[in-house]
Amino acid sequence: MPLRIVSENNFPTAAGLASSAAGFAALVRAIADLYQLRDAPEQLSLIARQGSGSACRSLQGGYVAWRMGEKEDGSDSLAEQVAEASHWPEMRALILVVSAGRKLVPSTAGMQLTVKTSQLFKQRVAEVVPKHMQDMEDAIRTKDFEKFAEVTMRDSNSFHATCLDTYPPIMYLNEYSKAAIRAVQMINEGAGKTLAAYTFDAGANPVIYYLEENSEAVVGSIFHSIPGAAGWKDREAFQAMKAHVALEDIGLMLAEGVKRVIMTGVGEGPTKTDQFLVAEDGSPVAT
Amino acid sequence: MPLRIVSENNFPTAAGLASSAAGFAALVRAIADLYQLRDAPEQLSLIARQGSGSACRSLQGGYVAWRMGEKEDGSDSLAEQVAEASHWPEMRALILVVSAGRKLVPSTAGMQLTVKTSQLFKQRVAEVVPKHMQDMEDAIRTKDFEKFAEVTMRDSNSFHATCLDTYPPIMYLNEYSKAAIRAVQMINEGAGKTLAAYTFDAGANPVIYYLEENSEAVVGSIFHSIPGAAGWKDREAFQAMKAHVALEDIGLMLAEGVKRVIMTGVGEGPTKTDQFLVAEDGSPVAT
Repeated sequence: MPLRIVSENNFPTAAGLASSAAGFAALVRAIADLYQLRDAPEQLSLIARQGSGSACRSLQGGYVAWRMGEKEDGSDSLAEQVAEASHWPEMRALILVVSAGRKLVPSTAGMQLTVKTSQLFKQRVAEVVPKHMQDMEDAIRTKDFEKFAEVTMRDSNSFHATCLDTYPPIMYLNEYSKAAIRAVQMINEGAGKTLAAYTFDAGANPVIYYLEENSEAVVGSIFHSIPGAAGWKDREAFQAMKAHVALEDIGLMLAEGVKRVIMTGVGEGPTKTDQFLVAEDGSPVAT
Repeated sequence: MPLRIVSENNFPTAAGLASSAAGFAALVRAIADLYQLRDAPEQLSLIARQGSGSACRSLQGGYVAWRMGEKEDGSDSLAEQVAEASHWPEMRALILVVSAGRKLVPSTAGMQLTVKTSQLFKQRVAEVVPKHMQDMEDAIRTKDFEKFAEVTMRDSNSFHATCLDTYPPIMYLNEYSKAAIRAVQMINEGAGKTLAAYTFDAGANPVIYYLEENSEAVVGSIFHSIPGAAGWKDREAFQAMKAHVALEDIGLMLAEGVKRVIMTGVGEGPTKTDQFLVAEDGSPVAT
């Protein structure tokens, strides 16, 4: 049966915010539903992975691990759920959109060049990632935010290090990314413990993880540097709060670069929304 | 005999331009001369290394290799000359000074943190550096600029990757550094072969290597973006040339960040200048 597929997206595309992961996961899930496939999500993740590697993680909700696998042909490289979203529902993510433009280097092509040319990447695959995967699973299972945060930041540093070690080098992080790293460090130093963690996908946009209970200390401090950015939830509540940490120069840097924020958390994976038929002119018609 | 040491420097200090290497090498050489020590430069390099690691390389002229050594106590970590400056006198270096301010992270402390926390650094020490050292010596001996350039750029990328992999991360490169990397790439793409190589010490300032015969293609292209910077030699000659490659946006970025250039080459190591006695008020008196 021929398919007409209409894909929509309310997220910046190709900006290093996993838009292709979301898109391919939704596509695979929708087609599996249409044909009433009974395959487990792990099996579907093998298919989604072929569209965009990280899409395999997006077929399930909660905390999901992408297993590297051991076979040369990648047929055992799939995603498994580590924990339901409800296991640790307090986890929050604040994304600072510093670059919604298209990336100069698409993630998949960049990754292929890194695999081919970075000598440090071998060490990352052989030792760094397996260690981080284990530590991260432990951190999630025991809901240990300090550990979660350290592994998150170390792994982000390590990934971007191998990008820089690529020949020619790939440099996703910019001055605004660095400012966000410094802001997270200042918030943690101010609190005397780790309340926030930064991470960067294949792009310049910082994703800052924190627990709901520390929303005031983390988000409150950042909000006051960029109150005019689009996307704030509870704007009035934050306006009434004082910043816990004055970010000063770093705040000015964020104000220059961040025009939009996305406040989100750990979600439930693909969700079936309204079903559509397509009219003869190609426009979708709700059933 | 008590010594009164007066140290002067015409170079930006603590900006990642090897000012401490130059200073410690000069100090060790001057004291060795004063006491008429007959030690070979390799032996003196062991002493200079204790002031600043890279100082060991600056006791000899020409092309010098810092041997890592094998002993735990570092007593065999010294510098050896690979070739005299006269072996390949056509080598030139153009330094774009984008940051003459003091570094946030002093090189030695940064390096110690990298050794302690970067997992990728192990791979760099075990495999990357030995390979690059061998390739670089071959390139110098055979005067193979393309090979020299590739190793130079790859090793710079690899070093800065391990800085980024440090925890917390060390990020020496800024937007102007990135612009210089791109400028070098554009010049090489424009020529259809490698005429220029970038490298960065522990700082943001690009050092661009090229051969004298390619001065017009390399320096000429950069000059036209930043004709007002201090430090240009042969300003009139460059003004009369056309830029081989129009750097466009990248040129505007350089114009914003580069206020001074240093044009230099491969030198002869420490040189004895005038000798001074010190007057009672501490001021130097030429003898």
